[in-house]
Amino acid sequence: MTLTPISSWASFGGTLSVHDHDSEACNGPMRFAVYTPPQARTGPVPVVWYLSGLTCNWSNVMEKSGLQRVASELGLMVVAPDTSPRGQDVADDEGYDLGQGAGFYLDATEAPWAPHFSMETYVTQELPALVAAHFPADMTRQGIMGHSMGGHGALTLNFRHPGRYASVSAFAPIVAPTKVPWGQKALKAYLGDECPAWGEHDACELVRRQPTDQMILIDQGGADQFLDEQLRPELFEAACREAGQPVTVRRHPGYDHSYWFIASFIEDHLRHHARALGVGD
Amino acid sequence: MTLTPISSWASFGGTLSVHDHDSEACNGPMRFAVYTPPQARTGPVPVVWYLSGLTCNWSNVMEKSGLQRVASELGLMVVAPDTSPRGQDVADDEGYDLGQGAGFYLDATEAPWAPHFSMETYVTQELPALVAAHFPADMTRQGIMGHSMGGHGALTLNFRHPGRYASVSAFAPIVAPTKVPWGQKALKAYLGDECPAWGEHDACELVRRQPTDQMILIDQGGADQFLDEQLRPELFEAACREAGQPVTVRRHPGYDHSYWFIASFIEDHLRHHARALGVGD
Repeated sequence: MTLTPISSWASFGGTLSVHDHDSEACNGPMRFAVYTPPQARTGPVPVVWYLSGLTCNWSNVMEKSGLQRVASELGLMVVAPDTSPRGQDVADDEGYDLGQGAGFYLDATEAPWAPHFSMETYVTQELPALVAAHFPADMTRQGIMGHSMGGHGALTLNFRHPGRYASVSAFAPIVAPTKVPWGQKALKAYLGDECPAWGEHDACELVRRQPTDQMILIDQGGADQFLDEQLRPELFEAACREAGQPVTVRRHPGYDHSYWFIASFIEDHLRHHARALGVGD
Repeated sequence: MTLTPISSWASFGGTLSVHDHDSEACNGPMRFAVYTPPQARTGPVPVVWYLSGLTCNWSNVMEKSGLQRVASELGLMVVAPDTSPRGQDVADDEGYDLGQGAGFYLDATEAPWAPHFSMETYVTQELPALVAAHFPADMTRQGIMGHSMGGHGALTLNFRHPGRYASVSAFAPIVAPTKVPWGQKALKAYLGDECPAWGEHDACELVRRQPTDQMILIDQGGADQFLDEQLRPELFEAACREAGQPVTVRRHPGYDHSYWFIASFIEDHLRHHARALGVGD
């Protein structure tokens, strides 16, 4: 498990670094970024996984969210994986919502995706082992968050790996992929025609089967252009109510789906994780 | 003076907006961005001008510095002009350090630059009039700041327009353009062979002629790749000492020339401006 350093910058007293490695899960090269806070100089720190949305890679959240300031204050490491395998040898689709940049945080079983698209194994097994081996990370204290498709990833991986993450939150997540166009297109391509496996990657279905005692934090922009067709947070609220799952869904009038929205509220999310992970005030 | 709205986003309770207009000074279309804080709903707010460095436009600082959070708290409007005129009809150079993206905040007198490159008139006359007409800006309270070439702009425009700006600060500024390669190339192209006019745009020369009673704040990364050849903050420190100009130059080991550096310290700069402009705590 060797890492190739790509870039490294001083940031808020800590370090933002970008790395390449050969991924077994994704059968090819992958790139990710880590923000290491200053507290890591004196011992391992908790890790928050940030899963990005369609088309994004590590740079969107690291450049635009301002997370480093708060992570530096609280002593949180933040890891931002890519949203899929990429490259000439990797299958792709003309749409921005399938294939490269759109891995949907699951392991594909269907051609032509199965050889490379194993983002669940990558994010929950291979990358954590790599981070544990190469960074001062306390892997007994992990949280997970994400945006849009990455909010879907954060919620579903949290339910599918109970006990792994102490805390979970999402910005404008896809909560019901079996019921919305983005999700139906991806689930059909990666897992085949509608089948029970779809429900294994739908936060609304997963919470009904096995709720947790975590308080889930969700922020949603009221002027989000994808709100009514693709996101539908009311479906998750209803499912949580039925299942007895604690959840807070905050709606913010005027905010859209962009990183201007995320930047405005990411401090609250990192403080939400810090409380569960036992750092900060 | 009509404005064409390009984009608008909710951000930290305020609004980030991008606008096009036909510039008389630059003889063609220009684009700029304004962060309007929530306090502007109830009355005019002070304005801080942010001048960007080589190659940049409005988006670098607005996307990567995180300024909106602090400007929102303090009640500061921040305006980010482009770094030059741009377009097919505008002269350019193969280098990134001359022509489009490299206006150096002066009015060019030489061919082929003179017809469009009047960034001093643009930033100090035309754009302020436009902002005063279209935004809830208190033009009696202005500050100016910038990065690299924009730090040069902030310092020189402050000295060249005494009384205009209550506060001034810079990140990794070019302080002695008559003595460093970036500056010499630009001054020669825009103003002709070495001549007294060069000194009119050199912060080290200007401060000797007419120091102010402002406390100038400068942050400089210790690992800045341009420190020794292009920036040379020690020359400005020496000139300020000679002239009796108050200045604070902070050196930050490990930080480079990037927006990761700027983001780490921009809060201090905005608070510096806020104090002089009479807002915040």
